[in-house]
Amino acid sequence: MKTLNKFLPKAEFDLRMGKIRKAMAKNNLDAVVLSTNVSLYYATGHILAGYVYIPLNGKTWIFVRRPLGIETENVVYIKKPEQIPALLEERGIAKAESISYEMGRANYLDVMRLGKVFGVEKYSDCTALMNEVRSVKTEWEVKKLRESGVRHVMAYRRFSGIYKEGMTDSEYQIELERILRLDGCLGQFRIAGDSMELFMGSLLAGDNADTPSPYDFAMGGEGMDSSLPVGCNGSIIHPGNTVMVDMNGNFTGYMTDMTRSYYVNRLDPRAKEAHKLSIAIHKALIDFIKPGVGAKDAYDLAYKMVEEAGFADNFMGHTQKAGFVGHGVGIEVNEWPVLAPRSKQVFEAGNVIAIEPKFVIPGVGAVGIENTYLVTEKGLDNLTPLEEEIVEL
Amino acid sequence: MKTLNKFLPKAEFDLRMGKIRKAMAKNNLDAVVLSTNVSLYYATGHILAGYVYIPLNGKTWIFVRRPLGIETENVVYIKKPEQIPALLEERGIAKAESISYEMGRANYLDVMRLGKVFGVEKYSDCTALMNEVRSVKTEWEVKKLRESGVRHVMAYRRFSGIYKEGMTDSEYQIELERILRLDGCLGQFRIAGDSMELFMGSLLAGDNADTPSPYDFAMGGEGMDSSLPVGCNGSIIHPGNTVMVDMNGNFTGYMTDMTRSYYVNRLDPRAKEAHKLSIAIHKALIDFIKPGVGAKDAYDLAYKMVEEAGFADNFMGHTQKAGFVGHGVGIEVNEWPVLAPRSKQVFEAGNVIAIEPKFVIPGVGAVGIENTYLVTEKGLDNLTPLEEEIVEL
Repeated sequence: MKTLNKFLPKAEFDLRMGKIRKAMAKNNLDAVVLSTNVSLYYATGHILAGYVYIPLNGKTWIFVRRPLGIETENVVYIKKPEQIPALLEERGIAKAESISYEMGRANYLDVMRLGKVFGVEKYSDCTALMNEVRSVKTEWEVKKLRESGVRHVMAYRRFSGIYKEGMTDSEYQIELERILRLDGCLGQFRIAGDSMELFMGSLLAGDNADTPSPYDFAMGGEGMDSSLPVGCNGSIIHPGNTVMVDMNGNFTGYMTDMTRSYYVNRLDPRAKEAHKLSIAIHKALIDFIKPGVGAKDAYDLAYKMVEEAGFADNFMGHTQKAGFVGHGVGIEVNEWPVLAPRSKQVFEAGNVIAIEPKFVIPGVGAVGIENTYLVTEKGLDNLTPLEEEIVEL
Repeated sequence: MKTLNKFLPKAEFDLRMGKIRKAMAKNNLDAVVLSTNVSLYYATGHILAGYVYIPLNGKTWIFVRRPLGIETENVVYIKKPEQIPALLEERGIAKAESISYEMGRANYLDVMRLGKVFGVEKYSDCTALMNEVRSVKTEWEVKKLRESGVRHVMAYRRFSGIYKEGMTDSEYQIELERILRLDGCLGQFRIAGDSMELFMGSLLAGDNADTPSPYDFAMGGEGMDSSLPVGCNGSIIHPGNTVMVDMNGNFTGYMTDMTRSYYVNRLDPRAKEAHKLSIAIHKALIDFIKPGVGAKDAYDLAYKMVEEAGFADNFMGHTQKAGFVGHGVGIEVNEWPVLAPRSKQVFEAGNVIAIEPKFVIPGVGAVGIENTYLVTEKGLDNLTPLEEEIVEL
């Protein structure tokens, strides 16, 4: 028997389709059409130029423009989406009464085109549905994330000894990039929407950590050019600076998110204290988060610790602040749930979340750590275990 | 007097607004609302989380959510787009009768949200209008592209001597990435839509060049992981292989596109011939392309040369083929015009185009070169001048 394709076992494909259909049934959806890279990859294990048609009942059909060479009974090659309705009819698939498109991902014209293709009067958006389905990882996905975590940690270990006195932040970052890449990091950093852009990671030294960015990252940075205003800015790392290293952990298509902080020559006492607070928040959240707990409550607990310790002005930025302390991560870096003050999301077993209580100390730099955790019935399982103390470069 | 911001001189901002308004007048548009990163960067010189409101007559307004710190009379800080109509009214701006949104870029829900915000009955899409405006570069933009070209060429010169026998394609690529990055390459590779994804560039050795990809690149490649199926695949570069190097040229926010080909140990005679043909096509197109010439005619001329030389089966891929021989380039890699069989576009002075006649020779690899040219009244000006012959690694 043929498997769906060489990248995704048939059982895993069926499991994912089952998850999607369960959510469809709950939302009274008749059919879902996926058309964007990340969703196609989730559904099929392939990046495709094409469409996945998922009826509530019956087989899933994969319509592919490119690449050539995907062979399975469910794949139909097409030149354009206008061919799809006739191809479904030929195969005896009843016309759907309502169709759900990726309205929060696909551009307006593409959605309108698909609307015209299927000519169905009742239509809706499946973006939130897919986000929710993807927020609970399968065992297969957790395996990918564990592998990224192990390799991410190994690369961070190899960062030791790379820093040389007088280096700029970008020179240092480039050497870390090379280590990550040689260790198998794919580099690609997938993000839903326009809210973030980043090349390979963020390394912030000294006061550059306090430069506001247009992006929704935990930290900002001026960047090397106005066309990419985030991260390192080419300035020399000075004695007394802290250096926050948050580099790409995409080794498997699924990324872990990990940050460690360092200092050069001497550590400012307040930065030292803030870094300890970050570790303490991790410990508190490890004890607190389990299935059924609210993502908002996790944020509130972290914020209460920050306020009590007198670090509210430094938490998640100083001049400009980020409004969260953690986020789901997987194929993309901004998955569900979000640990934020107004989040209504509730943790479930299978969520994979990055927690990143970070602090900006003016005149010194950023400190704090970030780990990626799997939410299990027993609590949080750390996928990025590595020494957490702030150490001298 | 204040300039618009530190990144874009006021005269350049005014010039761009003039270009956009001229196109608006031609298309009977009353107001344009830009909301995606690339368009905001084009309009303001800044990457913003926000919106640019361009009425046909009167001042342009820039509504910003993030980052903090942009100071000029035309900037208004907001929390959400729903505030914009009242803020325009306060400033005495008459309500537009029709509004154009970025329907080919922004997602469906974001366009619908803006539609509701402005509550205007007549609306339309400005994606093509902006693509057309951006396809004719200003002198300021050409300067950025020239700078990227010079630095791109300098980095390619430094590639010499990096290859070591026994290297894998990815090991070799990673060392080239490092050189580019140390030379100031930003790495970020901006692409409109879902049609392409790539990390830092494409290096194709041997038969991997013939692996079909879902993406609309000239060449494919298996990639290192099913989540990013393009480019090098980790195989050892063998004697007799050709190696095609097409690495990122974004040094300034504006990227040049450049490819050179190499071989290991011995050069297959047919690969040698195809490479010469690529250079000959460049020469022919340099003589042929000028303002007023059709982009389709440029493609046809290239294809005719390919057919006459007996390389049709190898042109722009072998197992799977790309349907173009060149494309506009600037902030993004897939700009206008497109040199393709059905293109209706006509070259104008100020277009910047990458021309990339490439060939896949089964059992050997890919050969050919790519340069980025400025279209001038006098013909093509090469922004990436570097030796074009295929040389031994």
